[in-house]
Amino acid sequence: MHGYNSVVTYRVGIINVTGYAGMESARLLWNHPAARIVAATGRSLAGKRLGDAFPHLASYDLEITPEIDADVDVVFSALPTAESAAACEPFIRSGVKVIDIAADFRLKDPGAFQEWFGKPHPAPDLLPQAVYGLPELNRERIAGASLVANPGCYPATSILALAPAVDAGIVGDMAIVDAKSGISGAGRGTGGGFGYSEVNEDVSAYKIANHNHQPEITQELSALREGPRLRVTFVPHLVPMTRGIHSTCYMPLARQVSQSEVDAIYADFYRQSPFTRVTAVPPHTKHTLGNNMCLVYPKVDERNGMLVAVGVLDNLVKGAAGQAIENMNLMLGIDQKAGLDFPALYP
Amino acid sequence: MHGYNSVVTYRVGIINVTGYAGMESARLLWNHPAARIVAATGRSLAGKRLGDAFPHLASYDLEITPEIDADVDVVFSALPTAESAAACEPFIRSGVKVIDIAADFRLKDPGAFQEWFGKPHPAPDLLPQAVYGLPELNRERIAGASLVANPGCYPATSILALAPAVDAGIVGDMAIVDAKSGISGAGRGTGGGFGYSEVNEDVSAYKIANHNHQPEITQELSALREGPRLRVTFVPHLVPMTRGIHSTCYMPLARQVSQSEVDAIYADFYRQSPFTRVTAVPPHTKHTLGNNMCLVYPKVDERNGMLVAVGVLDNLVKGAAGQAIENMNLMLGIDQKAGLDFPALYP
Amino acid sequence: MHGYNSVVTYRVGIINVTGYAGMESARLLWNHPAARIVAATGRSLAGKRLGDAFPHLASYDLEITPEIDADVDVVFSALPTAESAAACEPFIRSGVKVIDIAADFRLKDPGAFQEWFGKPHPAPDLLPQAVYGLPELNRERIAGASLVANPGCYPATSILALAPAVDAGIVGDMAIVDAKSGISGAGRGTGGGFGYSEVNEDVSAYKIANHNHQPEITQELSALREGPRLRVTFVPHLVPMTRGIHSTCYMPLARQVSQSEVDAIYADFYRQSPFTRVTAVPPHTKHTLGNNMCLVYPKVDERNGMLVAVGVLDNLVKGAAGQAIENMNLMLGIDQKAGLDFPALYP
Amino acid sequence: MHGYNSVVTYRVGIINVTGYAGMESARLLWNHPAARIVAATGRSLAGKRLGDAFPHLASYDLEITPEIDADVDVVFSALPTAESAAACEPFIRSGVKVIDIAADFRLKDPGAFQEWFGKPHPAPDLLPQAVYGLPELNRERIAGASLVANPGCYPATSILALAPAVDAGIVGDMAIVDAKSGISGAGRGTGGGFGYSEVNEDVSAYKIANHNHQPEITQELSALREGPRLRVTFVPHLVPMTRGIHSTCYMPLARQVSQSEVDAIYADFYRQSPFTRVTAVPPHTKHTLGNNMCLVYPKVDERNGMLVAVGVLDNLVKGAAGQAIENMNLMLGIDQKAGLDFPALYP
Repeated sequence: MHGYNSVVTYRVGIINVTGYAGMESARLLWNHPAARIVAATGRSLAGKRLGDAFPHLASYDLEITPEIDADVDVVFSALPTAESAAACEPFIRSGVKVIDIAADFRLKDPGAFQEWFGKPHPAPDLLPQAVYGLPELNRERIAGASLVANPGCYPATSILALAPAVDAGIVGDMAIVDAKSGISGAGRGTGGGFGYSEVNEDVSAYKIANHNHQPEITQELSALREGPRLRVTFVPHLVPMTRGIHSTCYMPLARQVSQSEVDAIYADFYRQSPFTRVTAVPPHTKHTLGNNMCLVYPKVDERNGMLVAVGVLDNLVKGAAGQAIENMNLMLGIDQKAGLDFPALYP
Repeated sequence: MHGYNSVVTYRVGIINVTGYAGMESARLLWNHPAARIVAATGRSLAGKRLGDAFPHLASYDLEITPEIDADVDVVFSALPTAESAAACEPFIRSGVKVIDIAADFRLKDPGAFQEWFGKPHPAPDLLPQAVYGLPELNRERIAGASLVANPGCYPATSILALAPAVDAGIVGDMAIVDAKSGISGAGRGTGGGFGYSEVNEDVSAYKIANHNHQPEITQELSALREGPRLRVTFVPHLVPMTRGIHSTCYMPLARQVSQSEVDAIYADFYRQSPFTRVTAVPPHTKHTLGNNMCLVYPKVDERNGMLVAVGVLDNLVKGAAGQAIENMNLMLGIDQKAGLDFPALYP
Repeated sequence: MHGYNSVVTYRVGIINVTGYAGMESARLLWNHPAARIVAATGRSLAGKRLGDAFPHLASYDLEITPEIDADVDVVFSALPTAESAAACEPFIRSGVKVIDIAADFRLKDPGAFQEWFGKPHPAPDLLPQAVYGLPELNRERIAGASLVANPGCYPATSILALAPAVDAGIVGDMAIVDAKSGISGAGRGTGGGFGYSEVNEDVSAYKIANHNHQPEITQELSALREGPRLRVTFVPHLVPMTRGIHSTCYMPLARQVSQSEVDAIYADFYRQSPFTRVTAVPPHTKHTLGNNMCLVYPKVDERNGMLVAVGVLDNLVKGAAGQAIENMNLMLGIDQKAGLDFPALYP
Repeated sequence: MHGYNSVVTYRVGIINVTGYAGMESARLLWNHPAARIVAATGRSLAGKRLGDAFPHLASYDLEITPEIDADVDVVFSALPTAESAAACEPFIRSGVKVIDIAADFRLKDPGAFQEWFGKPHPAPDLLPQAVYGLPELNRERIAGASLVANPGCYPATSILALAPAVDAGIVGDMAIVDAKSGISGAGRGTGGGFGYSEVNEDVSAYKIANHNHQPEITQELSALREGPRLRVTFVPHLVPMTRGIHSTCYMPLARQVSQSEVDAIYADFYRQSPFTRVTAVPPHTKHTLGNNMCLVYPKVDERNGMLVAVGVLDNLVKGAAGQAIENMNLMLGIDQKAGLDFPALYP
């Protein structure tokens, strides 16, 4: 059925294949050399063939089921946040490797979960074993993990844009993260407010300084250095495109640094990272359309002593499903790039 | 020919009607109750009927000419920056009221012009009489002016978002202005880089902290208060839509202020301004599509002591041609809203 | 409140101002010199200020009510088809002029209504007095009517593209109408299937040869000539834009005719029609964005003996609300162009 | 370098990699299991690294050269029509397999080339050996060919939509083909007329019944049956999306046929074709975004005795570069699906 073979083929289950992140996992896994989907769940669409529900997946010979009904080596959960932990829990406890694409296991502090999501954390005892799944920061720990918290799309973009500067200690305590997202970031079937006629030819901000990705960015960047937590003001925007995030990040410089010094810091930081590339000119989201790359560009504003750092990626790939597969590859000990090494769709 | 009449009809000449700002002036003036276009120039299209060059203007019975060849009361110049001053100069000297849509007369300091535009100012002796044409700040001075420097589209949006806070002294010295513009901001016939296939489904930043609208924002905001110049980091982005600018502005608060205090400051500042409205929720660019409104929304980020202020407008209307007509109305002593009082095109 | 005045101001009521056609009527009536909205109904949004529900209409000082609660001279009904007749009926019977934007009164034959809409006609006794509201065909009858059936957006475009050829007898009995519509044609809040992420970068056909606008096109074109009914195959498509319809119509020629003969037929047919213009090159939908123009272009395919006729318009203006106002103007005996004479928004 | 290996790796040269079809060939060949690019030419960009010219191809370690400067087994020519034949000729004569993506070798009749392209055919003696590269019609002949004329994007879509019906003899002599294309069909750097601001929110027809893809459609469909040539009226349109063609084709039925009979004819015709699938509902162009599928949907309009047949594909993949690779696979005797078996990018 698949074009390519491998000695071992790992069995993957996808919980909630009918959301965008689940669908996208199926798209990307089609050609994975060492993994294949053996079960995929959905609620409203249970009982349908995957290809009838989603014609672009017509090559799959798979039925959407209410529950994972096959033996699996790895589970991806693409359920909504706060519903995901409960679905993951039995797999975690039985030793199946779990990658949670929801936000349930990202914040280390259950109190922060309560503050930002408005409800108690659904499984606080599992939090200590969860590893934040950004290989550029945590490759080794992901490789040894049984439970990976896949990063949010905005945090992935923003952390990758800023991490080298924070890690190198060249910036201060304050960050402003102004992010622009395509509409698929709002999820499938989100109803009101994302109709084509209203969203087309429109830009708007939402949840200004009040989006639950703000503490996630803060937590991960703060962990890169000594000292007090960063103060991160995060403002997301919707722009009229389907996929892509452009995160423009601003941090006052802690000392005078030259552009070439910053360039060297960034190049060095990502030397071992196959999916994050530092660019020489401001990157375009479209240069990552459909693939697992993150492009990062740092720029020193000398007049004002400010670092401007841009990150771009495809929110459904490096910002969700592709990142999950990259994490799976590391957890399984196979090539980090397996199934993910292909160019973006351009133009 | 026109739908409405007035006792007096002022004669308007448009220099370079073939650029977007010139074309848009013609679109908006069609129904102006007290002004009509009597001459419109263009270079490559001279000799053509306006309606043959631009079918949406087919109702006009007007030929594009190489020079203004009729007596005029007002001239709009929509030439490129650094070419405009020379074309405006004879009209200014002969007492015709001039509104320059280019950047030639915006920066008070000829040295700043040299720094940011890379060439000497074309007419420094005229600078002292030029009034910056933002009625929300300068209504009285515009009414008495003979030469108005129409604001840039990014500065208009950004200054209107921040002016009340700067004026009230509630913010510090530093501002970050992250602006998202539709592609028409790049002008007509700009060739390479703005082809549909490349720009669609794409967001990118450009001229990071190096765009010539940065000093314009700095100059006008700094003039609102005592103390040193603001330090403004300005980053423009292109988003895939034709019209609209969304400017998201960040300034650390100088003291603790509540949301309701900020709301009151903004409401008070714009109480007399018919074309700037403070909104209760984040505004959408599309709510200003095709009309002369600017919508402004201030939000206090209490966690981080930051003011986030959003401004949105249509870059070709309140950001260019509509603003020019509003300035003309004030200069002529007629109703500020004449010809500009109509809803946005929505959806 | 309004910019312009008239000796008499007619009072307009809009039933269902919250759908796109109703909203658009409000947008367009803002500057009408002789009419103003005195009541506007809605269901889910009753009790809200119009400008709170729809920020682009913030200038209106009007509350959405459950019923028309003021004396009115004219009523526009923008209810869904089959619900509209009942709402219109009391106004019709009390002598108020009614323009029904729904399809309830378009088909003369109640049996055709049953066949295409799947339910009995709601008010068959009113059908004989309804006039099909396309001024290019029925100006005189509209002027004398009390009840006007405003054309569907697809039929308006397609009939205007083909009428001169059918009227002149140069084409045969068969027509193919291939129409491309922006997404707003699907209406507001239509939910499933019109989310941005799915509709963007997509073209699809729907209701192939089975759309209820097919009999409307057939009826009106067939009425222009002797002989049997035309056989019209109508296929609508959705294209990724908000507004606009492009109807490409094909009819085998009944005899050999030259391009110049066809041009003369079209020019002559529309000589008296202020809102339909015959173009010399294929028109663009964008040349009608937001205004009441229909552009028509006939082309003889000499190799195959085929007439290709294109019509374009804005589905919410000449295809709905603008057409309704044009009909109102004729019914009230005022200038046909009142409130509708302005250029398209371009680019 | 590549993810997958094969026993033999064929060496591919791409002439004019800098056009969209050339770029897209490079995108698709990245993961081909049995072929890799060894040379890629361009004119204005010769001397640049491929990844510097086109950032989405940054993984390639390849320089753009003025000429093919390596030994190759296969050449793709993506030059403009009428320039391509001369560049292909030396490779053809030296036994290298050639796939011409331009139109030079598509029309069998040199006189037709002269009529539609306005110049003499550049290499008429090579025409007899050229095979029209649509595997759904010519799989065997392509497998034995040394020179394949890759189909035009519009013809591929339209022929695949209509071929089963023409082949089965259920339709008459006349066809109307109304095609809607994304803007990338106009090619890279086509300058005037394809700027974002003008093309966005616009639909327009062009070259009505006068596009050089018309004779190509006519030739290939006519070859499927006895009798006189079909009379094909072809009208292309531009719609605001980057990729995708939707071809809506109309042919009067020659006899009464039921929907189920037509469905069976189509299913049977494409039973062996891995890249053309008959759908049960009208297909969406977006269901083929970025991959090599063509989706076909036939619908009988019983009221009018008309067949409506829809075809959709990605103009740069199945309409150009993917088709070229599929042809290469057949010519080399490897799996027809090699390198092309992956889902569309959706949403």
